[in-house]
Amino acid sequence: MKQNYIFLVLTMTLISSLTMAQTDSKIIEDFKPSTVNQPGKEFPKVNSQGYARFRIEAPTADSVRVSLGLGGKGGTKLTKSADGAWTGTTGGPMDEGFHYYHINIDGGTFNDPGALNFYGSTRWESGIEIPAHDQDFYALKAVPHGNVQQILFPSKSTNTSRRAFVYTPPGYGKEQSKRYPVLYLQHGWGEDETAWSNQGHANLIMDNLIAEGKIKPFIIVMTYGMTNEIKFGGLRNFDVTAFQTVLVDELIPYIDANFQTIAKQSHRAMGGLSMGGMETKMVTLNKTDVFSQYALLSGGTYSSEDIKDKSKVKLIFLSCGSKERPDGVKNAVVTLKNAGFNAVSYVSEGTGHEFQTWRRSLKELAPLLFKE
Amino acid sequence: MKQNYIFLVLTMTLISSLTMAQTDSKIIEDFKPSTVNQPGKEFPKVNSQGYARFRIEAPTADSVRVSLGLGGKGGTKLTKSADGAWTGTTGGPMDEGFHYYHINIDGGTFNDPGALNFYGSTRWESGIEIPAHDQDFYALKAVPHGNVQQILFPSKSTNTSRRAFVYTPPGYGKEQSKRYPVLYLQHGWGEDETAWSNQGHANLIMDNLIAEGKIKPFIIVMTYGMTNEIKFGGLRNFDVTAFQTVLVDELIPYIDANFQTIAKQSHRAMGGLSMGGMETKMVTLNKTDVFSQYALLSGGTYSSEDIKDKSKVKLIFLSCGSKERPDGVKNAVVTLKNAGFNAVSYVSEGTGHEFQTWRRSLKELAPLLFKE
Repeated sequence: MKQNYIFLVLTMTLISSLTMAQTDSKIIEDFKPSTVNQPGKEFPKVNSQGYARFRIEAPTADSVRVSLGLGGKGGTKLTKSADGAWTGTTGGPMDEGFHYYHINIDGGTFNDPGALNFYGSTRWESGIEIPAHDQDFYALKAVPHGNVQQILFPSKSTNTSRRAFVYTPPGYGKEQSKRYPVLYLQHGWGEDETAWSNQGHANLIMDNLIAEGKIKPFIIVMTYGMTNEIKFGGLRNFDVTAFQTVLVDELIPYIDANFQTIAKQSHRAMGGLSMGGMETKMVTLNKTDVFSQYALLSGGTYSSEDIKDKSKVKLIFLSCGSKERPDGVKNAVVTLKNAGFNAVSYVSEGTGHEFQTWRRSLKELAPLLFKE
Repeated sequence: MKQNYIFLVLTMTLISSLTMAQTDSKIIEDFKPSTVNQPGKEFPKVNSQGYARFRIEAPTADSVRVSLGLGGKGGTKLTKSADGAWTGTTGGPMDEGFHYYHINIDGGTFNDPGALNFYGSTRWESGIEIPAHDQDFYALKAVPHGNVQQILFPSKSTNTSRRAFVYTPPGYGKEQSKRYPVLYLQHGWGEDETAWSNQGHANLIMDNLIAEGKIKPFIIVMTYGMTNEIKFGGLRNFDVTAFQTVLVDELIPYIDANFQTIAKQSHRAMGGLSMGGMETKMVTLNKTDVFSQYALLSGGTYSSEDIKDKSKVKLIFLSCGSKERPDGVKNAVVTLKNAGFNAVSYVSEGTGHEFQTWRRSLKELAPLLFKE
């Protein structure tokens, strides 16, 4: 029903003008700056319905478009105002949560000067946040906060020092005898090791869950999945070896040597979103003595035939957005459970292949991990 | 002499065409991608002489300029190539080191899609790196690396959790009994707490100095100086109280409670660049029992009359680029020494009010700090 409504609005917008859509009585004029704008920037704005409004200054440009808003490749076409700025509103409400976008100005691709940038699509893209009904779980609150540490670890196989980010929970380091389990968490294609903290708010999700007593604290390690050399369509030939070597032979020993970890298979999990899920599946099946808990977030499924030694797997978590293929995830979990696995599915309502699905997935996954 | 040469080249470029400057036999065609480009991006490029070359795709734009290169407000005007891309080379070589810039397309301000972004001028700007003869001291090397931790500390005075970055040296945390001195290091106007790690490479400068045995390890804490509400020309009325409260009453106690610090005036230093230097001067003079070592990097000077109790000051470090006003810094240090202070001046050769001056200043400052 909502889909049909959006389609109607979009069609109207295409047939008539964007200005008409803007003055449509259905749009509530309670627009506020997106929460991921650059400091002091008023645009882009979002309203309580999920519409986004843009304003780009380029007085002598011929054409300014925003890559968001109509679903098709056209995006939202802005129109020139009397003051020389280009303005426009999306042709319909957008899904809750975070979206990447960019601006096309006279045939070139640029970022919106009003928005913060996030690494996606193999470039730093503009980001916009559509307020979600459940945004409280990743909000910055007055609770004890963990840290996100940038580490540079030696990698012989790639002959450089590589970067990773390590979330350590509140109070980490105060007692040297205290040891924590570790989740290795991967980004998707086009993204990098900054994604889970920047657009995913993994640290705030953890801080809030810990403050509410819903999870026992653990460490999260996020590094670059080396996915961006992979072109779409080339997945069948994807060789995970280079990444697996960095992760298992270089990063994990460094983490275990330098952080207060429980350096055991039973206390080590791996998860990933989208292509990071594909990597997670490959690495966990190759390295059954390294990880005991597996999570694929919009990143495929396991079948019971994939797993040779059931006793080594403590948890399989599969998730996706309701606008993806939730039946695939749900059916896979039913089959895994029937085969005797501790398997859990989660479907994020009203979201697609985007970060709101993955934020929610992390929130659902965290309490299931590292159960004694 | 070099200045005159640049002026000549600039004049020639303005009178003739940019293409002529590009084919000038004086420009060596050994251009390579800037080291701070986005992954896989070929442009902007720099050559061994310090020229920068740009390429921006915007096929139907009327005008594309780069804010760098001619010194004046005109910047480098790009010309449209047959393939629809806009290209151009700076009218002369640029100073060694890091420069902020942006692109003007048809009257609007955007970033270069090829370059990484850095927070400066109160916005995320494009950055370019002109290879410096001494770039080795901030290079990523195969040495033990410290971490840069993002912390979120509670701030009652501003009613939020505020962000800071904490550099901890290699091996930090392995022995809980080991304690470190702390340098509180501030960015300049228009920048934020990301500047010293991102464009300053403070962490790599420290890692390399420690690996060479040139300094004893210490912690660096970098937070937002709340400077960006201050307009140019309004400095006389600048009130440091709000920032001083966050720094001294909120951040320092948090750091001392959560990190392995030596929580004493004798082992606490403060430094800052440009407006961060002005803040450093104000805070250190107000809080003589908090800091014992002061550093102003292109950020003014102290006079001996400023300091009421000489016994509380262990070091005064003043620096700037040779293209700023080095005599002011040198003369102030002579006067301070005559008055009995341990004062040191440093002038960065061939650089101005930019990050290369401040990288070098940190390298010179670090070995002087926290002497027993």
